[in-house]
Amino acid sequence: MKRILLIGMGAGNPEHITVQAINALNQTDVFFILDKGYANDDLLRLRREMCERYISGDYRVVQVQDPQREENTQSYEAGIHDWHQQRAALFEQLIGDEVADGEVGAFLVWGDPTLYDSTLRILDRVLERGAQVFDYQVIPGITSVQALVAQHRIPLNRIGEPIQITTGRRLAQQAADEIQNVVVLLDAHCRFDALADSDLHIYWGAYLGTPDEILISGRLRDVSAEIMRVREGARRKKGWIMDTYLLRRPY
Amino acid sequence: MKRILLIGMGAGNPEHITVQAINALNQTDVFFILDKGYANDDLLRLRREMCERYISGDYRVVQVQDPQREENTQSYEAGIHDWHQQRAALFEQLIGDEVADGEVGAFLVWGDPTLYDSTLRILDRVLERGAQVFDYQVIPGITSVQALVAQHRIPLNRIGEPIQITTGRRLAQQAADEIQNVVVLLDAHCRFDALADSDLHIYWGAYLGTPDEILISGRLRDVSAEIMRVREGARRKKGWIMDTYLLRRPY
Repeated sequence: MKRILLIGMGAGNPEHITVQAINALNQTDVFFILDKGYANDDLLRLRREMCERYISGDYRVVQVQDPQREENTQSYEAGIHDWHQQRAALFEQLIGDEVADGEVGAFLVWGDPTLYDSTLRILDRVLERGAQVFDYQVIPGITSVQALVAQHRIPLNRIGEPIQITTGRRLAQQAADEIQNVVVLLDAHCRFDALADSDLHIYWGAYLGTPDEILISGRLRDVSAEIMRVREGARRKKGWIMDTYLLRRPY
Repeated sequence: MKRILLIGMGAGNPEHITVQAINALNQTDVFFILDKGYANDDLLRLRREMCERYISGDYRVVQVQDPQREENTQSYEAGIHDWHQQRAALFEQLIGDEVADGEVGAFLVWGDPTLYDSTLRILDRVLERGAQVFDYQVIPGITSVQALVAQHRIPLNRIGEPIQITTGRRLAQQAADEIQNVVVLLDAHCRFDALADSDLHIYWGAYLGTPDEILISGRLRDVSAEIMRVREGARRKKGWIMDTYLLRRPY
């Protein structure tokens, strides 16, 4: 039987990695690294450094070009579906060609493999296609959400209140007065700025857990413009940005 | 300056601990262990075993009785507030008596210190009281939410959908048709059973990450009674239970 591991690597601080993940790295024969073709060489380099730091034996690395997601003119979901099919075909080929029976292959995922990452879904799809048979395991990792609130030293929830986790795309469909306590991921368009007339507070962070970490917090109306300016400057300088934020209504 | 660390220990699997948390354990001079007075000696023992396993030097352990929360007849929030004041007085005394200048004290928290845990809030309150001055740091840990979905091997979110994290108490106030994808924590009363007439699926787990782990999933109408039976049997046998679950509307 082949074995596939989905290993959560944490949010960017190499010390966010768990003992379980380190043990998983050391059981792995071959690592699949998906090059997204963006200018985020930093993230590829950081993954390789973490492998060198935490793995004591030999291992192989197979780096492949990740299929680019193309905009589907019909719908967002259809675009995602097409992209997942392309990736399933790629993963099937990688597992077929590179993982022998009894071997262990691994995908390394920033944050946690269950939170806004598609690798788990795509492995399920590979199994459905039926050409490859394998067992797989999910190893949780510290997410950017946890790094955000740890660095701001705030609780993720308030007493007796729920937490919502959503995307920038979904946030744009919400009215300001529906928002109590919302964590927003994957917002390339600074959708928080449309809410800057409200009383919301924002806790924002970029490159969380890394030496380049930036934290800004305050009343959205006071800091929204500053966040956008700092964010754009950092993105230009490094060539990429990963950021997340929490919006909270004051009592 | 005194330093206080809030260390997330993970959800119960000793290998969920991060390298950052292990380094924090090894910087600590004195650990504060709050005995909740329940029959959960297992959890006290597991914490001590993790300290023994991961710490190479000397350390002190101060174990104190955690104030019991008393029901406030006026409101839930007022009851929580009174309890937090009592705990703030206790923490202030512990930090005053047990942590010398230049020393490091630590509170060990199951899961993540920012998710439905009050230690962080209480440290803020101690600082507000002004009698003790210290610096503090939050070290994230793998939560039971992450352990739940990793063990069920399901994504926490679905494509383009938000995630809600809430408590059993709040779930009881929600209508079944409002629920898309909800994680429920702190539900001692099996509030999911009131939703068993709906089409929701449940992914339930207890003692996640430990050798006693139990996982049950399926259509709520098919498995609700089974979960309640298994849960009650396990609780009686061990004397305590920690469980969490995800409710999801099928497409």
